[in-house]
Amino acid sequence: MRQNSYTMKKIEHIGIAVNSLAEASITYEKLLGIPAYKEEEVVSEGVKTVFFKSGPNKIELLEATNDESSIAKFIAKKGEGIHHVAFEVEDIVAEISRLKMEGFVVLNEIPKKGADNKWVAFLHPKNTNGVLIELCQEIE
Amino acid sequence: MRQNSYTMKKIEHIGIAVNSLAEASITYEKLLGIPAYKEEEVVSEGVKTVFFKSGPNKIELLEATNDESSIAKFIAKKGEGIHHVAFEVEDIVAEISRLKMEGFVVLNEIPKKGADNKWVAFLHPKNTNGVLIELCQEIE
Repeated sequence: MRQNSYTMKKIEHIGIAVNSLAEASITYEKLLGIPAYKEEEVVSEGVKTVFFKSGPNKIELLEATNDESSIAKFIAKKGEGIHHVAFEVEDIVAEISRLKMEGFVVLNEIPKKGADNKWVAFLHPKNTNGVLIELCQEIE
Repeated sequence: MRQNSYTMKKIEHIGIAVNSLAEASITYEKLLGIPAYKEEEVVSEGVKTVFFKSGPNKIELLEATNDESSIAKFIAKKGEGIHHVAFEVEDIVAEISRLKMEGFVVLNEIPKKGADNKWVAFLHPKNTNGVLIELCQEIE
């Protein structure tokens, strides 16, 4: 096991599936004591997002823009709540390779463009105790 | 709204409910690329915990030690997965007071001793889009 730049650098953000971004944004502004710093739609994923900062970490609120969105399906099955946790990695391609060798199932082996200027890849939650894990790397 | 020491300083940790700490610890050691740094039982909560670091953040794995534990009930209802997110606060008593005034429901208004040498308090998830939120402050 390598313990160098391959490891997860921090929790970049947690993603929370919500029914209404407008309402949830008010709630999380009160909770965190600061306003959101970014709103962004990711058309390919069928989501609108709002981001908050909490020190070195972020909170991403996600609302589905259509019924086929993974967020719509998640809420239909489980209700609102934490949808995923994202770890910042130094080299997403190397990390995908390392995790595949460790037996994790990478849902998209080619990183795709996510919200907030990131390359992202997801791990199947069946191998991570039910947790949907995102790897993300800033797009330079 | 105050934007000073009252606000959440960072995501201190996320807590993940698991069936087997022994098995999940192996998984998360592979995932994060580092071994756990602490194991601890919290008898009052009916849980055993294992902690990993990811930069400034932590991952807490939680296994129930009896059927009345909130972790046992969570897994029975929802399966394994993310159980809570904990934010580090500067002054937990002041933060509980602020959040009550903002309309959040604090499950324990008197902070209690949690794992990893922390004072902790929880917010009811009905007011936070289904997310169980923990406030925590290091015990000095």
